[in-house]
Amino acid sequence: MSEEKVLIFGHRNPDTDTICSALVYADLKTKLGENVEAVRLGEVGAETQCALDTFGVTAPRMMEHVSDEASKVILVDHNERQQSAEDIDQVQVTEVIDHHRIANFETDSPLYYRAEPVGCTATILNKMYKEHGVEVSKEMAGLMVSAIISDSLLFKSPTCTDEDLAAAKELAPVAGIDLDEYGLEMLKAGANMAEKTPEQLITLDSKEFAMGDVKAVIGQVNVVDAGDVLDRQAAVEEAMQKEVESRGLGLYMLAVTDILNSNSIALAVGDKKEAIEQAFDVRFENGQATLEGVVSRKKQIVPPLQKLLG
Amino acid sequence: MSEEKVLIFGHRNPDTDTICSALVYADLKTKLGENVEAVRLGEVGAETQCALDTFGVTAPRMMEHVSDEASKVILVDHNERQQSAEDIDQVQVTEVIDHHRIANFETDSPLYYRAEPVGCTATILNKMYKEHGVEVSKEMAGLMVSAIISDSLLFKSPTCTDEDLAAAKELAPVAGIDLDEYGLEMLKAGANMAEKTPEQLITLDSKEFAMGDVKAVIGQVNVVDAGDVLDRQAAVEEAMQKEVESRGLGLYMLAVTDILNSNSIALAVGDKKEAIEQAFDVRFENGQATLEGVVSRKKQIVPPLQKLLG
Repeated sequence: MSEEKVLIFGHRNPDTDTICSALVYADLKTKLGENVEAVRLGEVGAETQCALDTFGVTAPRMMEHVSDEASKVILVDHNERQQSAEDIDQVQVTEVIDHHRIANFETDSPLYYRAEPVGCTATILNKMYKEHGVEVSKEMAGLMVSAIISDSLLFKSPTCTDEDLAAAKELAPVAGIDLDEYGLEMLKAGANMAEKTPEQLITLDSKEFAMGDVKAVIGQVNVVDAGDVLDRQAAVEEAMQKEVESRGLGLYMLAVTDILNSNSIALAVGDKKEAIEQAFDVRFENGQATLEGVVSRKKQIVPPLQKLLG
Repeated sequence: MSEEKVLIFGHRNPDTDTICSALVYADLKTKLGENVEAVRLGEVGAETQCALDTFGVTAPRMMEHVSDEASKVILVDHNERQQSAEDIDQVQVTEVIDHHRIANFETDSPLYYRAEPVGCTATILNKMYKEHGVEVSKEMAGLMVSAIISDSLLFKSPTCTDEDLAAAKELAPVAGIDLDEYGLEMLKAGANMAEKTPEQLITLDSKEFAMGDVKAVIGQVNVVDAGDVLDRQAAVEEAMQKEVESRGLGLYMLAVTDILNSNSIALAVGDKKEAIEQAFDVRFENGQATLEGVVSRKKQIVPPLQKLLG
């Protein structure tokens, strides 16, 4: 048992899986007698706050420079250094629990690294409680099930595996919640876009991709009422146009994802806008194109665009 | 279950852990209903052959271009691409089971990656049989215990953990062997250096390191009778001198490790030879320096030299 405290954290721009998995793994480690603390690298979103409030758990402490307080850290829900703490190169990563590809990650020493191709980090943590014979509390079950609901959009995302669904069904009664009822409530809490500015809407969850010679940015917002965003279409397009010009982009796309109907409405700006029509076999009408059944940027939006432009 | 065969292999210049772990993981996967085959990237050494013969297991098939036969592969006992198949970039790595640092490794997609900071890959595989509820056969127990004995030099290496020792003690009765008796026999089988040429002795297991501005090569041979090597000291030094000159090295060191007494005798050539005297607080006498208790290059030889020269 190490005496020095080890910090556990997920990625920047934390989502529900990142925050909950840091808290949950810290709980498991603490019960195993280790000296750890969950921290976070960014603001807690409304969806995550709903999960924390529901189960009466306090958010992890916010940190910027992890090396100020620790020489050893554990990463959850990410491994790529540009998604991690700014000073990640100044500490030793002793463990990683993750469900993403491995890239931009290197260590000097052997470590405990556990990645599984499932939809959510919490699904792996749920197994680890069993492997260590540690009982899952109501609170931790609640955080894990929240993370799974969030990452899988209530099991509708193509990233969701049978293991994720089975874990959620197992954890729901321990957490004392009805999956559909609580799941929708939590997702809705994070899907209120009425008070966001156009600039916030397009950058809340946006990633830049290099597709052939084209620099493309794809943003995504989850909504219950697409009108929250589409009623301000002109202002949103104007905000995207500014980004296209200042960053030299070929395409800025915003996917407005309806979490109830599992569709996305695409808005787009840039010379390569027609690539969306080709890639998804759709037409923009009044600047909007409906992508039926599309909810996952990683699995359903990036690959067809990458194939066309890359 | 995938229909296409997945190849499982360890690193180039295969040692006992790499060969045995590929065979053992293929056994476990096959029993779980998966279509896999263990292969190898190099010649089987005498120590490994002793293990295979003892337990009546055939060596994996030798391969050079893995992409000729498979699009998906599983790596055991390594992850760095320069230690793997030449065409590793042309296949998808779907799993890694390893106990080394992570470096020079990147994937496009999520995968199953399991690394633990233990002394031997087989120690992790032994756990995986339990996790899947699959019984370990006598043959597979024999291969796993051989791998642990090899990587830990019969539990004397500082890389050996409590988990490795516990796994070996658990597997020995299943394999039907006495740990000390069989262990020594197997290690001795790989420790006969009498028939190796000086060039073979210095390159059998050698690695190049960048230490500050100095390029250093450190070779290691395990012996029962150090005379196999030291009786030909002048010829060995001449072979090292040739390497120093042709590769511009500051140091070529050969550690002749006595597996019975857990000491190493160092031979060395190059401008930076005296670094060994400083790093280990020893003197060369007739060109030989005794490093008491030193058996692990990774843990006991590289770090003090790196600290001094780096």
